Amino acid sequence: MKTKLIQNAAGRWVPEIVNGRQTIPFKGVGKYKPTAKKYAPAISSCADFPADGNKLVSSLKVALVKAGLADGMTISTHHHFRNGDLIANQVFDIAKELGVKNLVWFPSASFPCHEHLIPYLEDGTIHHVEGSMNGPLGRFASEGKMKGMAVLRSHGGRYQAIQDGEVKIDIAVIAAPTADFFGNATGDRGDAACGLLGFALADSQYAEKVIVATDNLVPFPCVPWQIQGNYVDYVVQVEKIGIPEKIVSGTTRITKSPDRLYIARLTAEFCNATGLIYDGFSFQVGAGGTSLSIGLYFQDILRKTGRKARFIRAGSNKYAVKMLEEGLTDYILDGQTFDLEGVRSMRENANHVNTSPFTSYNYHGKGNFAQLVDVVILGATEVDLNFNANVVTHSDGYMLHGIGGWQNCLFSKCVILPVPLFRDRIPVVVDEVTTLCGPGELIDVIVTERGIAINPKRIDLIEKAKRTNLPVRTIRELKEEAEKICGQPEKPTLTDKIIGVVKWVDGTVIDSIKQVKT
Amino acid sequence: MKTKLIQNAAGRWVPEIVNGRQTIPFKGVGKYKPTAKKYAPAISSCADFPADGNKLVSSLKVALVKAGLADGMTISTHHHFRNGDLIANQVFDIAKELGVKNLVWFPSASFPCHEHLIPYLEDGTIHHVEGSMNGPLGRFASEGKMKGMAVLRSHGGRYQAIQDGEVKIDIAVIAAPTADFFGNATGDRGDAACGLLGFALADSQYAEKVIVATDNLVPFPCVPWQIQGNYVDYVVQVEKIGIPEKIVSGTTRITKSPDRLYIARLTAEFCNATGLIYDGFSFQVGAGGTSLSIGLYFQDILRKTGRKARFIRAGSNKYAVKMLEEGLTDYILDGQTFDLEGVRSMRENANHVNTSPFTSYNYHGKGNFAQLVDVVILGATEVDLNFNANVVTHSDGYMLHGIGGWQNCLFSKCVILPVPLFRDRIPVVVDEVTTLCGPGELIDVIVTERGIAINPKRIDLIEKAKRTNLPVRTIRELKEEAEKICGQPEKPTLTDKIIGVVKWVDGTVIDSIKQVKT
Repeated sequence: MKTKLIQNAAGRWVPEIVNGRQTIPFKGVGKYKPTAKKYAPAISSCADFPADGNKLVSSLKVALVKAGLADGMTISTHHHFRNGDLIANQVFDIAKELGVKNLVWFPSASFPCHEHLIPYLEDGTIHHVEGSMNGPLGRFASEGKMKGMAVLRSHGGRYQAIQDGEVKIDIAVIAAPTADFFGNATGDRGDAACGLLGFALADSQYAEKVIVATDNLVPFPCVPWQIQGNYVDYVVQVEKIGIPEKIVSGTTRITKSPDRLYIARLTAEFCNATGLIYDGFSFQVGAGGTSLSIGLYFQDILRKTGRKARFIRAGSNKYAVKMLEEGLTDYILDGQTFDLEGVRSMRENANHVNTSPFTSYNYHGKGNFAQLVDVVILGATEVDLNFNANVVTHSDGYMLHGIGGWQNCLFSKCVILPVPLFRDRIPVVVDEVTTLCGPGELIDVIVTERGIAINPKRIDLIEKAKRTNLPVRTIRELKEEAEKICGQPEKPTLTDKIIGVVKWVDGTVIDSIKQVKT
Repeated sequence: MKTKLIQNAAGRWVPEIVNGRQTIPFKGVGKYKPTAKKYAPAISSCADFPADGNKLVSSLKVALVKAGLADGMTISTHHHFRNGDLIANQVFDIAKELGVKNLVWFPSASFPCHEHLIPYLEDGTIHHVEGSMNGPLGRFASEGKMKGMAVLRSHGGRYQAIQDGEVKIDIAVIAAPTADFFGNATGDRGDAACGLLGFALADSQYAEKVIVATDNLVPFPCVPWQIQGNYVDYVVQVEKIGIPEKIVSGTTRITKSPDRLYIARLTAEFCNATGLIYDGFSFQVGAGGTSLSIGLYFQDILRKTGRKARFIRAGSNKYAVKMLEEGLTDYILDGQTFDLEGVRSMRENANHVNTSPFTSYNYHGKGNFAQLVDVVILGATEVDLNFNANVVTHSDGYMLHGIGGWQNCLFSKCVILPVPLFRDRIPVVVDEVTTLCGPGELIDVIVTERGIAINPKRIDLIEKAKRTNLPVRTIRELKEEAEKICGQPEKPTLTDKIIGVVKWVDGTVIDSIKQVKT
């Protein structure tokens, strides 16, 4: 069956129907206004739950059976353990064993460890995955091998989709480093401590049935309760929920590449020279090597000028924690801890605050935290002449990355993409991005090792940059320089088949992803 | 118009229609099973909120007008400031000034300071109050002067009613001791610090429009955010939200009455002798003088036996805080701080945990904390031969008290009511309670200065008590003794007009309150 395509407000052709469900094409930033009500889960009654609060059942299998696991259901899990997750695979091993078919897997993200699930995508246990597919699963889908269509959402978009009833979760399985028998759960302690459990918040609030699996059961109450037991149906004690050394890295590495270090320094200098780093400012940098270096440059600037950040939005790591402990920031508002120092700090320091995709990113709330951040530093696989950017596909068309909080962060006050001008001799600045993930109107500055391009919309920044020695160029100049060095990039070879869509933060479809010709 | 009455499962006659809305008569404990969905508020969009997150408007009046204040709306406020509240009165002063009529006031509780609103109940600005009416408003309603019917709910029942859509809040006004311009708010700091803001949680989640009023605006982020700004529409800075000395009492007083002290000691001895105070047990005592004394006896027992409580459910005060700091309990799970020590401890100590009517009390959740408590000590205005109890009306029929968490606490593992056998020569143990608030099947023990009555259903406790020297008697013996001393109590003189109803924790109507003949 051929899917009917509609051209959206970004000029991209997107399918009218995705996995049997009508979609809304992207209408422009801030243009689509929902008129519906939030999803309303069924009312529960304490009369249907154990009088003593003990919701323990003997195994994950028993919990799934009690939760009514059946063909066609949507099952959610979360990526708090990243590539060290041991629970999602078990869930589908059980489904396979029970002969359940056509499940939708709705993870907050998937990782290479989930390659284990490819046979289940092949044999029909899993119909399709809705969620970021980092690596092998993305490759599998890109090659047209997944039955359903991939649906990529940002972290905020995932909350929005659940809240709005776009995705109805039948069973959420929340793996928790520490929990009590009532279902209260936390990620900030236990052998598999991952910091926080925010990605499972929406699932706990809206899923029909909620299972908490833990390898560290503590007597009630589990404090803090990042996940509230009042939303939980069953609790399961398992031997091991994740591989600690793969969950958080003990060390986070600063880039050693001279080019990347130069980009980082240039980015920090740009921010300083244009007045973005004022006393009380706020910023968010990613966990990549270049981003980490930018964070260090920011620290230096704050120390030298005697200024202080009001808050860091994070992805925390030891560098952010050091800033908090040194008094260079009042708060860390953390959505995901990237190393053990981040976990420790969140556990110990009341000013290292646990946030969620609801507080930070949900576009269908009454505002969110992302929009309050002064400077956000993001990555991209491609940027085009209109400042549109791509984070999910490579120039060869393969869908290999998730969106994460990337789209949500575009609403910050100044969005900077420090990117190399080319990677493996493939230009990053291109005529048109392979996949549109973020509209150029929200992207303010591109920093490369060959110069800085400022979005023409940001006249204020252009004026300020004029008064500096910064190497400001047009985005076209950057593209031409890349092509001078690498040659004109080849177009990816794609078929007409749409294997996935990218959702915008408001649930509309901003672009399609086509099958790669193999 | 005469209201049609139905006899409920407790044998009480209750109106079929309350304030124009069909009701469900009480069906028995755990018998009514809701089949509906939770209330679904409208989906918001960040596009409709300030891009910089600043939701400040110039005055409470402006906020109310922007929120669309109009005839017939339901307006909620909260009792975190108890008798020191300055906001609820202002809200209705503004409504009066704007000529708005027939409002429903839906406070989490009202206090004598709200006597100010009686003229608005008389002139039609306010149609009726749904919520506890402590003192003057209760007297006003009892005398048949309120246009609509009073609806009394427990704290958990209030959460349940909002969650289930029984009460649709048009505008919630949340007075916050500290807040930021985004609407994040906390009660644990600021001049009017009251500890926590849990009673406003449901309102923030489900009300159509949410206004935060504060007299201590701090730069974003306000940490902790007990109320999440993502639910808030407008923020207003006011001069003063409450009178600190009336919000929390600097000192909480232990009873000095020899009879009350004896009841307290007897209660503690009963708990100790029947094995209720084991290592790792949990308890909840109220803030009254007798309850406080019981808490002190519990402390003594723990110290002497080298035991430790796992948690105290509170209503915290300096005595509970001392236990936490002395290591006599691992946690305080707090729903309401009763003195400044409670506020300080909650602010400073991560093991003094902020709870809400959702976590602690909501009967339409997947369990709640109240049911996990080993021993709960509650009060009552009357107890009858079937252990049914009353907390809202006096023997003269006047409705002068709210339910608070009382009904919700009845689900704890052992419910003990330490009550004097009579007050002002009026027996407390009676043939039949004036108003049924809690079914006797949930009430385990009555402790009076003339002996202890154990509910015949609790064979286990009766057996254990037999092996002690405790003065165990039947409830009938207690009643007869009271009547021997005070004489047969007079029945209240009531009319046939129903002025209020008492809801059970599941939203059904457990009893009616009749007008007092004046």
